[in-house]
Amino acid sequence: MIKVVFFDLDDTLVDTSRLAEMARKNAIENMIRHGLPVDFDTAYQELLELINEYGSNFGRHFDYLLRRLDLPSNPKWIAAGVIAYHNTKFAYLKSVRGARRLLLELKKSGYKLGIITDGDPIKQWEKILRLELDAYFDEVLISDHLGVKKPHRKIFEKALRKMKVEPDEAIMVGDRLYSDIYGAKQVGMRTVWFKYGKYANRELEYQEYADFTIRSLEELPGILRGLKLEEESEGGSDKEVHAD
Amino acid sequence: MIKVVFFDLDDTLVDTSRLAEMARKNAIENMIRHGLPVDFDTAYQELLELINEYGSNFGRHFDYLLRRLDLPSNPKWIAAGVIAYHNTKFAYLKSVRGARRLLLELKKSGYKLGIITDGDPIKQWEKILRLELDAYFDEVLISDHLGVKKPHRKIFEKALRKMKVEPDEAIMVGDRLYSDIYGAKQVGMRTVWFKYGKYANRELEYQEYADFTIRSLEELPGILRGLKLEEESEGGSDKEVHAD
Repeated sequence: MIKVVFFDLDDTLVDTSRLAEMARKNAIENMIRHGLPVDFDTAYQELLELINEYGSNFGRHFDYLLRRLDLPSNPKWIAAGVIAYHNTKFAYLKSVRGARRLLLELKKSGYKLGIITDGDPIKQWEKILRLELDAYFDEVLISDHLGVKKPHRKIFEKALRKMKVEPDEAIMVGDRLYSDIYGAKQVGMRTVWFKYGKYANRELEYQEYADFTIRSLEELPGILRGLKLEEESEGGSDKEVHAD
Repeated sequence: MIKVVFFDLDDTLVDTSRLAEMARKNAIENMIRHGLPVDFDTAYQELLELINEYGSNFGRHFDYLLRRLDLPSNPKWIAAGVIAYHNTKFAYLKSVRGARRLLLELKKSGYKLGIITDGDPIKQWEKILRLELDAYFDEVLISDHLGVKKPHRKIFEKALRKMKVEPDEAIMVGDRLYSDIYGAKQVGMRTVWFKYGKYANRELEYQEYADFTIRSLEELPGILRGLKLEEESEGGSDKEVHAD
C-alpha cells in the first residue's frame, strides 16, 4: 500500500525551465538596453551554450558571456543582466499547473509527502519557501547536501529511511526518466513519469522504468486510487498485509 | 569655477544603511519564522558583529551566522534569510531624500556629474540602475575596479582626468569624512560633507578637510551659487580665468 508520495522539484512542482528561459531572455534584453553592443540572438545563443557547459548554478554567467563575446568586463552590463534576471525570477516563480491542488488532495487523503531533488540546497529551499510549499512536505531531501546526485541510490534509500517506509510503500513522481524514474525504480519504488517540459522527449531509453506516465499532475490521484483498489482486490501479499 | 560635482553613492545618493538595517532585521525574522531556534536580539547582534568582522559584501553571512550560534548548517533557514533580505532590498531601495531633484537641478545648471564610490562594482551598478540614476552621470568610478579604496588619490585623480578638469574645478559630496572628504581634499578638490546616516558623528578628526557641511542635499545648490558669486566678485585668479 502506497503511504508516501515523493516528488522531484524542478519542472515537476515548480515551473523552473519556463521561468529560467524568461529570466535569461529578459537579462539579455536589459544588457542590450544598457549598451551591450551585440544583437539579441547572438548573445542569447552564447548564454545558452555557456549554461550548457558550466551548469545553471554557475555564479558568473554574465561575466563569462562578455568574455565569450570578446567584450571588456563591464559591471554596468553585468548588473543590468543580474537585475532583469532576478526581477523575472521573483516575479514569475510559479508552481506547475495543478500542483498545489494535488498536494492538498494528497494530504487530505492521508499520504505523507516528500521532495527528492538535485541542485544547490539554498536555491532549492528558496523556491520552496517563496512558493510556500514547505507546509505540505514531511521531508525535503536535496542531493547536494548528501554529496550525491540522482539517480544515486543513496538519496532514495535515505528518503525511505526518513519516512520509515519500505520501497513498495512509496511512489516517485518526476519529469526526468534517468534521475527520477530510473533512480527510484532501482531501489524498488513505484514510478510516475511526468512527461512535461524540456525532458518530455529525452532519456527515452529509461522509459521502461516508468510504471505510469502522466501529462498533467491531475492524473496522479487516479493512479493512486487504482493502486489501492488493485491491492484491495488482490487481498495483498504477506508483505503488504504486514506493512499495513 | 566649479564645473563638476562628484558624489559618493552609499548614504549620499542611495539610502543604503537604512535599507541594510531593514533587510537584515527582516532576514532574521524570517529565519526565526522558519524555525531558527534563537531569539531575535541574540541573532541580530551576532549578525551585526559578523558583518563588522567580515564586511557587508561577504557572501555567506547567514551560513556563518549559524556557525556562530553553534547551530547545524540548514539550507532552509539560510534560504529564509536570503529571501527576506532580497525582498526587502528590492522593495525598499530608495534614493536619499532630495537626491533626484538635486541631480536634475544640477544638470539643468550645466554641471557635469560623477559618482566616486567604493564597493563591489556589480552591486554598485545594481543600485544605480535599479534607481535609474545612470542618466544623470557622465562618469561612474568604482574603486574596486581600480584596485584601490577611497581615500586613495588614484581614484580621485582618475575621476578628474576622465572629466578633463583641474582639481579646483571639482567639488566632492560625501557622507564620510575620511574616505570622501579627506580623499578629495588631498588632490585639491572642494569638499562638502553630507552629515547624514551612520557616519554623521564618526571620523571627526578629518572634519578640517570639509569646506562645507550640509545636513540635507537641498543645501548644495546654495553652496554652488555662493562659490560662483565669490569668484565673480573676486574677478578670479589667473588660473580660474584661464580655466573658464
